[in-house]
Amino acid sequence: MTGSETPDHRIPATEETIHTTWSRQHDPVQTIDSGDVVRFDCRDATNGQLDATSTIDDIYALANDSTGHPLTGPIAVRDARPGDVLVVELLDFQHEGIGFTYFYPGDEGWGLLPEEFADPGLHVWNLEDDVGEFVDGIEVPLAPFSGNLGVAPAADDTHSTTPPRRVGGNLDVKHLTAGATLYLPVEVDEALFSIGDCHAAQGDGEVCVTGIEAPRSVTARFSLESEMDIDQPQFETTGPFSAPGHDQSVYATTGISDDLMEATKLAVRHMITYLHEHRDLTRAEAYLLCSAIVDLKINEVVNKPNWVVSAYIPQGIFPE
Amino acid sequence: MTGSETPDHRIPATEETIHTTWSRQHDPVQTIDSGDVVRFDCRDATNGQLDATSTIDDIYALANDSTGHPLTGPIAVRDARPGDVLVVELLDFQHEGIGFTYFYPGDEGWGLLPEEFADPGLHVWNLEDDVGEFVDGIEVPLAPFSGNLGVAPAADDTHSTTPPRRVGGNLDVKHLTAGATLYLPVEVDEALFSIGDCHAAQGDGEVCVTGIEAPRSVTARFSLESEMDIDQPQFETTGPFSAPGHDQSVYATTGISDDLMEATKLAVRHMITYLHEHRDLTRAEAYLLCSAIVDLKINEVVNKPNWVVSAYIPQGIFPE
Repeated sequence: MTGSETPDHRIPATEETIHTTWSRQHDPVQTIDSGDVVRFDCRDATNGQLDATSTIDDIYALANDSTGHPLTGPIAVRDARPGDVLVVELLDFQHEGIGFTYFYPGDEGWGLLPEEFADPGLHVWNLEDDVGEFVDGIEVPLAPFSGNLGVAPAADDTHSTTPPRRVGGNLDVKHLTAGATLYLPVEVDEALFSIGDCHAAQGDGEVCVTGIEAPRSVTARFSLESEMDIDQPQFETTGPFSAPGHDQSVYATTGISDDLMEATKLAVRHMITYLHEHRDLTRAEAYLLCSAIVDLKINEVVNKPNWVVSAYIPQGIFPE
Repeated sequence: MTGSETPDHRIPATEETIHTTWSRQHDPVQTIDSGDVVRFDCRDATNGQLDATSTIDDIYALANDSTGHPLTGPIAVRDARPGDVLVVELLDFQHEGIGFTYFYPGDEGWGLLPEEFADPGLHVWNLEDDVGEFVDGIEVPLAPFSGNLGVAPAADDTHSTTPPRRVGGNLDVKHLTAGATLYLPVEVDEALFSIGDCHAAQGDGEVCVTGIEAPRSVTARFSLESEMDIDQPQFETTGPFSAPGHDQSVYATTGISDDLMEATKLAVRHMITYLHEHRDLTRAEAYLLCSAIVDLKINEVVNKPNWVVSAYIPQGIFPE
């Protein structure tokens, strides 16, 4: 199956299809059958508030906007029932040539290290077919996916789009690229699937709070599985697993601590320092680049009382 | 540089060279110059207490043995001073054809999920050149490295070999295979480097507390770097980065929680359940296999209040 397959349904991004909360009360914009292919147009996470001319002044404005991620949908899957698993085969992602990575620091800030920076940071990416252009000739390989996709929670009322849940949502799993299949536990009749928050690339961790945020269309096939029994989302990839550039030489910094979150912060702080001192980036540029491409791995969680988390950057992204 | 290079020094594993604590008080067994290549013979983590005939009765005996990892060394590096960085180029690993993965459960147990099992688990691996044989035709690609390598801490007295520290030690970083270079902060004169705890393979996380524990010889080149300034260990790899089999199709389970350690435990529990239900392994076999090959990644640590950790298994290890 390829992305060139003609979709059975197409969901545009309009006032009627865009919603910024998760809720079982949202009316479906389309009902589909198991096996159908659907193409969604998605807005970027800022709902179009950034463009090629944006500056950090626009990030201050974003910080005062508490609207959730714009999600496209929901679609109703005929015959889906609580306890079923919705199988989402991700077939194709198309971008529009531009993307944004940004952070907002301080006590009210977002991300892993808000206390490390006094001012916001922003990089506007020009996206080619395969790479995004950072500063100083650095090119980040693209591996597009949707950061926020899921089905409606059973609990009444509306729910923030920020935290992920057992029904999916803001998972930010960078491996959900074209070719991957996501399994989601269904909690409400007809599943009510929505999608958005597309990223052209992202490191495992998404440390500054954004990947390369980009408007995209997504094509996926949906089917129902009543025999599976899963507690939280699961997924599989078709090879190759590593994003381009990630399977070559890497540089890594460790974080060692008796607290797993602190070990994570240390690994990222050490990587920012490395990129600043050895790759001539400002610390803000380094933090943005970490969020776009640095991967976080848990090396060990068993050597009491200290755990090791490492941050990995592929060296092939730097010019010779 | 290849592993076939003739070492300048060879350190056997004997009563004189094996020690089971970290300490600046250990007398060096060899003094080397910056640039020298050294071959170390290493005992496995059990100090030879397991062999091809071992059963879980032997794991009960191990549980009553509080001796630390047997480490070979220390070697003194002439002119090394506190504040320097010791550069360790890992050149070659040679195994002896056998390895062990085991866990000990219960309140006094080791590993990430001691509460999940009533009895110990053990798998004795027959190691071919490139793969280790598990059960049911499952073959795990080998990617040998040392789990415990470092220099002496500045603090007086002796220190357990279990927790890793800023000077290295029990890092269990699976990417420190032949071709990788490790940078260690030196805290004492002449650095006092030791190494042991070799693994034929291991998943990121080493979740049951052991990789494929195996006796090995390790060859490495040592040099000093006085211009670098690092707070905790750093390392680089030469490509390809992924272990064999890890760059093909993978299956992954997520763990979603507002606590990063709990998210980690959930991801591994879900993987054990998947391997039990879909790959016909007992839960104990599944836990052992997780520790030998399943990788833990932090997908996001920024979508308050819930974080996502996923456990990844390469599907190519299973027979067709």
